[in-house]
Amino acid sequence: MIPRRHQAIVSPPGAAASGWPPPGAAASGWPPPGVVVILVPMLIRDATAGDWPAIWPFMRRIVEAGETFSWDRDLTEERARAFWLHEPPGRGRTVVAVDPAGTIVGTAETHPNHGGPAAHVASAGFMVDPGHGGRGVGRALCEHVLDQARADGYRAMQFNAVVETNTRAVALWRSLGFEVLATVPEAFNHPVAGYVGLHIMYRRL
Amino acid sequence: MIPRRHQAIVSPPGAAASGWPPPGAAASGWPPPGVVVILVPMLIRDATAGDWPAIWPFMRRIVEAGETFSWDRDLTEERARAFWLHEPPGRGRTVVAVDPAGTIVGTAETHPNHGGPAAHVASAGFMVDPGHGGRGVGRALCEHVLDQARADGYRAMQFNAVVETNTRAVALWRSLGFEVLATVPEAFNHPVAGYVGLHIMYRRL
Repeated sequence: MIPRRHQAIVSPPGAAASGWPPPGAAASGWPPPGVVVILVPMLIRDATAGDWPAIWPFMRRIVEAGETFSWDRDLTEERARAFWLHEPPGRGRTVVAVDPAGTIVGTAETHPNHGGPAAHVASAGFMVDPGHGGRGVGRALCEHVLDQARADGYRAMQFNAVVETNTRAVALWRSLGFEVLATVPEAFNHPVAGYVGLHIMYRRL
Repeated sequence: MIPRRHQAIVSPPGAAASGWPPPGAAASGWPPPGVVVILVPMLIRDATAGDWPAIWPFMRRIVEAGETFSWDRDLTEERARAFWLHEPPGRGRTVVAVDPAGTIVGTAETHPNHGGPAAHVASAGFMVDPGHGGRGVGRALCEHVLDQARADGYRAMQFNAVVETNTRAVALWRSLGFEVLATVPEAFNHPVAGYVGLHIMYRRL
């Protein structure tokens, strides 16, 4: 049995031979006729320095787009790497999501949101290769990060800057138990939508 | 005429000879009998590397106390300096408040709260030497920082972690136009009060 968090649901063409859904599943009305669903094992593991060359191309693309991340759009690779790839002995952690072909399709990092007397609240960042989006990679990464943060002794997790037009992410975080504590008005200058709000999202662990 | 922002109100013993309050002021009922009020010019200027030895002793005392700052309580001087003393060409600014005797009694730093598409919202930090508290130094620093941030083109200012038990600071920020956007529950472990909330405070510029 593949642990739940290592599964992502996809429906690529030609997947009918996978034997899924099982007989009788169609009686529920889902999936609709002609749609098949397969389970793809998705490995979430600690990132290593050697993963960086596979992370940077899609990270750069996401940051340059300037639609979802509050980072300088011309961020250098060196600074991005220093921010993202946490190394011991700090409390930061970085993981990657690897598909069955061995391709890194996403990454996440976790760190204390503040220091000292406030270091029991974690924050996290997520990047999924846009070429591999919509498959549940972000959900798998977040479920892993939540479990890990709990194991690491954090009491809550806070996202400081979720762009309100990034509705897919907002819906995903909500479905994983996060609520919007506040929306900082006009705090993000979206290249198409203009000034939009940044949600501060939170959940206990 | 001393600019408003360079004044702080204090009432030290022996100040009666200052000629303040002016004749007739007592008719308003304030200050009460026996209390005198003097105006002390407080210079707010850009910090230099040479100011650091005067800043670090009270900063260290504040951080070690662990009651108001979300920093590691054993933060090294080197890291504190790197965080606090901004240098060109970055957008961060650091100022000090200097009393008439030439003593540095407080300091503030300002920086973009996030990067790239969110870099138009500033954040700021304030430290007032506890030995010089209650004189309006924090207010003078904040008024300066707000004016400077406006001049620098920021559209708003956000404080990410105002400890809710730091009621004097909360009242001061409110009086300067900040509102509490949200309170992150139990996000700060106060050495006496235990887990208390962290206010996220905000004002447009």
